[in-house]
Amino acid sequence: MKLTINRQRFLKILNIVNIAIVPKSPTPAYLNFKLVMKSNELQVLGSNGELTISSTCPIEENGKNLITDYEEGETLISARFLLEIVKKLESDIVTLEIIDEVIARISDNKSEFKLNSIRAYEYPDLDLEKQGEEIVFLAEDLKKIVSQTAFAASTKEVRPVLTAINAKGNGNEIEFVATDSYRLAKKTYYINQDVHFLANIPVKTLIEVSKLVEDGEVVMTISETKAVFSYKDTNIYSRLISGDFPKISNMFPSNYPYVLQVNSNNFVAAMERVSLLAIERENIVKLAVSSDKLEISSKSEQIGSAIETIEDFRYTGDRFEISFNVNYVIDAIKAAQSEDVVLSFVGEMSAFKVSSLDDESIVQIVTPVRSYY
Amino acid sequence: MKLTINRQRFLKILNIVNIAIVPKSPTPAYLNFKLVMKSNELQVLGSNGELTISSTCPIEENGKNLITDYEEGETLISARFLLEIVKKLESDIVTLEIIDEVIARISDNKSEFKLNSIRAYEYPDLDLEKQGEEIVFLAEDLKKIVSQTAFAASTKEVRPVLTAINAKGNGNEIEFVATDSYRLAKKTYYINQDVHFLANIPVKTLIEVSKLVEDGEVVMTISETKAVFSYKDTNIYSRLISGDFPKISNMFPSNYPYVLQVNSNNFVAAMERVSLLAIERENIVKLAVSSDKLEISSKSEQIGSAIETIEDFRYTGDRFEISFNVNYVIDAIKAAQSEDVVLSFVGEMSAFKVSSLDDESIVQIVTPVRSYY
Repeated sequence: MKLTINRQRFLKILNIVNIAIVPKSPTPAYLNFKLVMKSNELQVLGSNGELTISSTCPIEENGKNLITDYEEGETLISARFLLEIVKKLESDIVTLEIIDEVIARISDNKSEFKLNSIRAYEYPDLDLEKQGEEIVFLAEDLKKIVSQTAFAASTKEVRPVLTAINAKGNGNEIEFVATDSYRLAKKTYYINQDVHFLANIPVKTLIEVSKLVEDGEVVMTISETKAVFSYKDTNIYSRLISGDFPKISNMFPSNYPYVLQVNSNNFVAAMERVSLLAIERENIVKLAVSSDKLEISSKSEQIGSAIETIEDFRYTGDRFEISFNVNYVIDAIKAAQSEDVVLSFVGEMSAFKVSSLDDESIVQIVTPVRSYY
Repeated sequence: MKLTINRQRFLKILNIVNIAIVPKSPTPAYLNFKLVMKSNELQVLGSNGELTISSTCPIEENGKNLITDYEEGETLISARFLLEIVKKLESDIVTLEIIDEVIARISDNKSEFKLNSIRAYEYPDLDLEKQGEEIVFLAEDLKKIVSQTAFAASTKEVRPVLTAINAKGNGNEIEFVATDSYRLAKKTYYINQDVHFLANIPVKTLIEVSKLVEDGEVVMTISETKAVFSYKDTNIYSRLISGDFPKISNMFPSNYPYVLQVNSNNFVAAMERVSLLAIERENIVKLAVSSDKLEISSKSEQIGSAIETIEDFRYTGDRFEISFNVNYVIDAIKAAQSEDVVLSFVGEMSAFKVSSLDDESIVQIVTPVRSYY
């Protein structure tokens, strides 16, 4: 195997594929890039067993040679060192050559690195087939879906299914739901396709995909066990998480006796100030609202107390008090991405809804906490 | 005690004084700002026992009122919370009022915080006298002195004196020396004063002072036990470190048989690339030079090998090889702040000199290491 490749392009691909590579793995082969020089392209592949990324560089693009002087073949090379070397070289092109099947010689006119490499057949067999239903997203839409839901997923592995975003395709709409069981985010996405699927997609995968894609389209191919995201020259393969996702149909009552509308920025800024003194009580703040007064407050024996008065608001309902984890409400308001936000309450100890006036596709649910002052 | 103060100015002072405050202290009073409202100014003071910073805000400056509606008095307030509150408020002015001597009420028109505060007499007695010899630096010179020497000081507390920069004033020159016993940086500073002193100034203090000062003059007042740096409205008080600093007079031989001159940027970039494969051998790289060839290399059984050829250099001497910790040499070259750099060698196992062609005031010494390949 041998090739001379445009350094910037090579670096870009290595950086993309490197997302799938973890610093430590029980399968040492996963610490490597798998490089396959074919007759028409270079393929670079990285994996940690759960997430696999493959990206290709063609020999030629728009009449410009990206790869020259090549011989077909394949090898495994330490991801960490290959990436660092290609990053630090100063030349426009890099030559990579496998000597005696176990030494990778990486060079330009000034530098020469010889890395111990591994034969490609020592890499685990990965299922890289694309099978199942194809759903087409605009890249910007997918990024928004992830930014509006992913934060609500659990980061703890205790209940693996809660580290996924539950995606349900039903006709021309897809519902994305994330919950850590204390709060929930639901986003509805409408498409020009007729789709039917149900999948728990790891939130980590969706975050990486949303960071990677910039413009144009992303195709998700979804089967019983696997989701594949295809974007330009890159395929991202992710396992799905098995298990039943919590039912959410009974979480949205039809009647809310207490409804508050506030300016998002003012409300978040006030909550951030009040929360300064709420640390020792796990960020619990109290909201008290009546037709003529809106106050947020927090109290700590050790530190002191804080109270904020908000002038500009609309409220329908009797005088009402509720306490909650301020970070959950701030996250929910930010996810609404709306100038004004509506908080709809059922009662002091019932989950409440955070929604936007302009965009009904995104709804958040937050569980309150008991307050002791 | 009571005052209404310009918020931005108050925040600036709190941020400066906060540098001296540590997150945890065996003396709980040190977790607080000491605020003293006097007849003509507000003084804010913070300390950790070793470093103390005091900064003041006048009532009025250039015809503009900075403090209004004040009553004299003093108090201790949690540094962490006061700083966060003043940072997060949105108003132009902040009102601070001490109620019943133990509650600090901090407010603007929207927010009200009540922090538990402590009576000022519970603060340790600090010696804030300025005594001793006064030395005047330009702020930019002091910043350069620190950037060229501080990195060579030890970060380990095993030999406390090595965590200081040794400053020796002798006539119209001051010699600053830092060493961690593996490498050494020496900077000579010439002044229009006749000075005589010897002091081990904690490198941490000098780094903080150099970050704080921007332009104009800094006055250092130095006594047997203490250095005070005065800059605009701020005084920084630091203890000195006792103990004998290593003698350096015998570290600069008069004759160097091997002298290499290289472009700083090229040489550093090449060393950074080669060092990629030198991690498992503690960043040791080998330099081999003769009249027509300059190579830097590293080798690791596990990973592989790297070799760099440098085209542009000047050399006088026989063929010569030496191995060293590449980070020490990179630091030394960067400190020279010069386009070209000169490395002067005595022998394979002798400390060598890194110096600049343009600026004789800065000289670095690096100890080599044994290489096994």
